[in-house]
Amino acid sequence: MNRKTAFLLLCGWLTTTALFAQNGVLVFQSDFGLKDGAVSAMKGVAVGVSPNLLIFDLTHEIPPYNIWEAAYRLLQTAPYYPKGTVFVSVCDPGVGTDRKSVVLLTQSGHYFVTPDNGTLTLIAEKLGIQEVREIDEAVNRLRNSSESYTFHGRDVYAYTGARLAAKVITFAQVGKKLPAEVTKMPYQRPVFEKGVLKGNIPVLDVQYGNVWTNIPRQLFGQLGVKTGETVRVRIFNKDQTVFDSRVPLVHTFGESQEGANVAYFNSLLNFSVAVNMGNFAEKYTVSSGPGWRIEVEK
Amino acid sequence: MNRKTAFLLLCGWLTTTALFAQNGVLVFQSDFGLKDGAVSAMKGVAVGVSPNLLIFDLTHEIPPYNIWEAAYRLLQTAPYYPKGTVFVSVCDPGVGTDRKSVVLLTQSGHYFVTPDNGTLTLIAEKLGIQEVREIDEAVNRLRNSSESYTFHGRDVYAYTGARLAAKVITFAQVGKKLPAEVTKMPYQRPVFEKGVLKGNIPVLDVQYGNVWTNIPRQLFGQLGVKTGETVRVRIFNKDQTVFDSRVPLVHTFGESQEGANVAYFNSLLNFSVAVNMGNFAEKYTVSSGPGWRIEVEK
Amino acid sequence: MNRKTAFLLLCGWLTTTALFAQNGVLVFQSDFGLKDGAVSAMKGVAVGVSPNLLIFDLTHEIPPYNIWEAAYRLLQTAPYYPKGTVFVSVCDPGVGTDRKSVVLLTQSGHYFVTPDNGTLTLIAEKLGIQEVREIDEAVNRLRNSSESYTFHGRDVYAYTGARLAAKVITFAQVGKKLPAEVTKMPYQRPVFEKGVLKGNIPVLDVQYGNVWTNIPRQLFGQLGVKTGETVRVRIFNKDQTVFDSRVPLVHTFGESQEGANVAYFNSLLNFSVAVNMGNFAEKYTVSSGPGWRIEVEK
Repeated sequence: MNRKTAFLLLCGWLTTTALFAQNGVLVFQSDFGLKDGAVSAMKGVAVGVSPNLLIFDLTHEIPPYNIWEAAYRLLQTAPYYPKGTVFVSVCDPGVGTDRKSVVLLTQSGHYFVTPDNGTLTLIAEKLGIQEVREIDEAVNRLRNSSESYTFHGRDVYAYTGARLAAKVITFAQVGKKLPAEVTKMPYQRPVFEKGVLKGNIPVLDVQYGNVWTNIPRQLFGQLGVKTGETVRVRIFNKDQTVFDSRVPLVHTFGESQEGANVAYFNSLLNFSVAVNMGNFAEKYTVSSGPGWRIEVEK
Repeated sequence: MNRKTAFLLLCGWLTTTALFAQNGVLVFQSDFGLKDGAVSAMKGVAVGVSPNLLIFDLTHEIPPYNIWEAAYRLLQTAPYYPKGTVFVSVCDPGVGTDRKSVVLLTQSGHYFVTPDNGTLTLIAEKLGIQEVREIDEAVNRLRNSSESYTFHGRDVYAYTGARLAAKVITFAQVGKKLPAEVTKMPYQRPVFEKGVLKGNIPVLDVQYGNVWTNIPRQLFGQLGVKTGETVRVRIFNKDQTVFDSRVPLVHTFGESQEGANVAYFNSLLNFSVAVNMGNFAEKYTVSSGPGWRIEVEK
Repeated sequence: MNRKTAFLLLCGWLTTTALFAQNGVLVFQSDFGLKDGAVSAMKGVAVGVSPNLLIFDLTHEIPPYNIWEAAYRLLQTAPYYPKGTVFVSVCDPGVGTDRKSVVLLTQSGHYFVTPDNGTLTLIAEKLGIQEVREIDEAVNRLRNSSESYTFHGRDVYAYTGARLAAKVITFAQVGKKLPAEVTKMPYQRPVFEKGVLKGNIPVLDVQYGNVWTNIPRQLFGQLGVKTGETVRVRIFNKDQTVFDSRVPLVHTFGESQEGANVAYFNSLLNFSVAVNMGNFAEKYTVSSGPGWRIEVEK
C-alpha cells in the first residue's frame, strides 16, 4: 500500500464517517391522524429516498383543515430542532386549487415544505424569511404518481422534503425562487396600549386545557406585576366576553391549590392561564384561533 | 502494513459501509393502541435484536379484532415502502387457536409477518404471493418467553420480523415452506356489469369521513363519465340501501362548494365519495367492511 | 504509510464502527398527549444533542398527572429494552415544588430520568436500585432555557436523558449521588394468605378493557388450580365490592366462547380477567390504581 492509496482510504473513511454524521432530519406534521396508513405511506416514501434520514413526527392530530393550528404547532416546535431540519406540513383544504406548493428557508436555517395557505404565518414572523421557492412538480414528484390528485402530501411534499433533507436535491433544485413572502392570516398581535396588554389565543394546551396566549413575558413586564399579585384577565371570542376575573400570577403550579385559577408563563415563555390540576378551557368554554383575544391589566 | 492487510482493511471498511447502507426496514401494525406499553415493548425487542433497524409504525389504531381493516391498511401503505421491508401485523383475535403464524414474501419483495387469519387477503391479491412460510416457534421466539401465551405479538411476531429485517435469519430460517396461499375473507370485488360498477367499501378515510371504494380509476373509465358530470351512487350495507343520490365527479375538492357531496379518486386512485370540508360517513351513516357495497352508474 | 499510521487508521475505523454499533437508545414517556408539539420538541432537543440516538416512545397517553400509571407503564415495558437504554418519563404534577429530579440506574443496567414523585415505585422493586443521582440543573439544562419554569420535561429531562444516552455525559456527571432509594406509593403487594390470593389492579389493558393484576403466575400456583377449572374472583375499590363471581382459568382466549368471562395470564405472566372479544372493565365498571384490589380463591 503506497501513500496515495492510504490517503484515499483515509479520505474514504472520513467521508463515510461524515456521511453518517450528517444524517438529515425530517419532521412530519399533518391533519391525517394516525388511524390509517397515510402518515406511514409518507414515511415509506421518505425511507425509499434515503435510509439515512432521521424521521420524526411533530403531530398528525391537527384538527382537519385547521391551518391556523398547523401554523402554531410549527412555531411551538421548530426552534427546538437543529439548523437544517426539514419540516413537511400537510394541512391542505385547498388541495387542487391555485395555492402554491412552496419551501421556505428561514433565517434560522430551517426548511418548511407546505402548501402556502397560511401555514407559514407564524413561523415566518418568528424565524424570519431567508428565501421562498415554489416546488416544481414536474420534477419533484414521486414517479408513477402523476394521476393522483388528492395526495400531494405523500407524492409531492413528503417526497420533496425527503430529497431535500437527504441532500438528493439542493434548495435551488426545489424550483423557481419566489418573492420573499408567504400567505398570512390576520390575528391580534401582542401589544401594550394604555395600560392594557392585548393578544391572541393561538392554541390551547390541549392535553391539560390550559389557555396559551401570544403575549411574551418580556412585553408582560411592562405591566409591572410581580409573582403572587393578581391581574384582571378578560377573554373574548370575537366581540363576546367569555371570561372576566382576577387571577394570581404564579411562578409554578405548586404554589397554588388544586382547582385554583392561575396565570403563568408557559414553555414558550408566553402568558397563559390554567386551573391547577384542572381544565381551564373546558371549565370556561374557551377555545382558540384567529378570532380569540385576551386582555390583561393590573 | 502489507498489501494483504491493506486489502482486508479495505474490505472491512466497505463491509461496514455496506452494513449501514443496508439497514433493514421494519414496520409495525397492530390493534394495541398507543395508550399502554405493548407497542413500545415490541420495539424494545426489535432494537435488542439489532440497533441498525429502521423502525416505523403503520398504525396501531386498528379497531380491536378488526382483521378486515388490518388487511386494508397493509394494502394502502405497503407499496410505498422499499423492497425488502418487513411488515409485522398483529391483529389476532384467534391467538391460541390453530391459526398459523406465517411470513408471506410477495412478488414485489415485501415481507409480512402475521397470524394467517385473513390479514393477508388484500395484500396477497395486490402484490402477489411469492412464498409463504410458517414461523417455527420452537426457534423463532424471544428467549425466556415460553410461558407467555397471550403475547405472540411481541415474543414471536416482533422478534421474528426484527430478526428477518436485520438479516439475523434468512427467509428460509423462518420455518417450513407452506403452499403458496393465504387465508382469505370474501368481499365484493370490483366489476363492471350491464352498465353498473360494483365494488366494496373496504375502509373509511377515518380522519375526514370520506368513503373509499375498491373500484379503480381504470375500471371506472368504462362508465364513460367525465369530470364535472354526475353519477348515480348507491351504497348498501348487506341488503339495505343506505345512500342513493347523484353526485358530481370532481378533479379536486377545490372545484366544489363547502358542504357539497363529491365523487373523486383518492390517493390509491380508487373511486371515493366525500362531503367537501365535511364528513360523508357521519352524515349518511356509512361504515365499511366486507358487508358494505357500492354501485355506480351513469 | 508506516505501521503506526496504519494502526491508528485501523483504530479510527474500529472506533467509528463501534460508535455506530453503540448508538444510545432513548425512550420517552409522558402525559403530554400527541396533539401538540411538546413531545416533538423533546425529540428535537435530543436529536440536537446527537443525531446517532435511537429514539422511541413508550406512551404519551398517560392520563394527565397520573403518576401511578406512569409507574406501571415503565414496569410493563422497560425490561424488553436492551441494557443501557435511557428512559425519560415526564408526569410531573408537582413541577416547581421541591420534588427532586433524579436519574435511577437499576441493577439491570437501565436508566430512568424523571421527577422522583412515585414514578419509580414499581420499576425500582422490579429491576432493583443500583444508584440514584440528582440532576444538577445548573449544568444539565438546555442553554437559554433558564427563564422557563414549566417545561422541565424538555429542558431538563429530555436534554439530560439525551446527553446520557449519547454518552456526552457520564452517569456521575448527572449530579450528586443520593441514598439508594426512591419515593414510593403504597399499594397491595401480591400475597397468599389463608387460601386467598390478594393483589392490586395496577392498570387496565386499556385497548381491550381487560383487567390486569400484579399477582404473578408463580404465586398463583400455590392455589393449586388447573386450566379449565374455575376460581372465585372478587374485585374491590377501596372497601367496596365491585365484582364477585366464579371465572374459568383458560390457556388461551380461543378456548372460550365470545362474551364469556375468562381468567388468564397476560404478557407479563400476571393473573388477569377479561371478557372474550369484549370489554370486562366497561361491563363491570372496574378501574385501576393504588386503591383497586383483587382477591382470588378456589
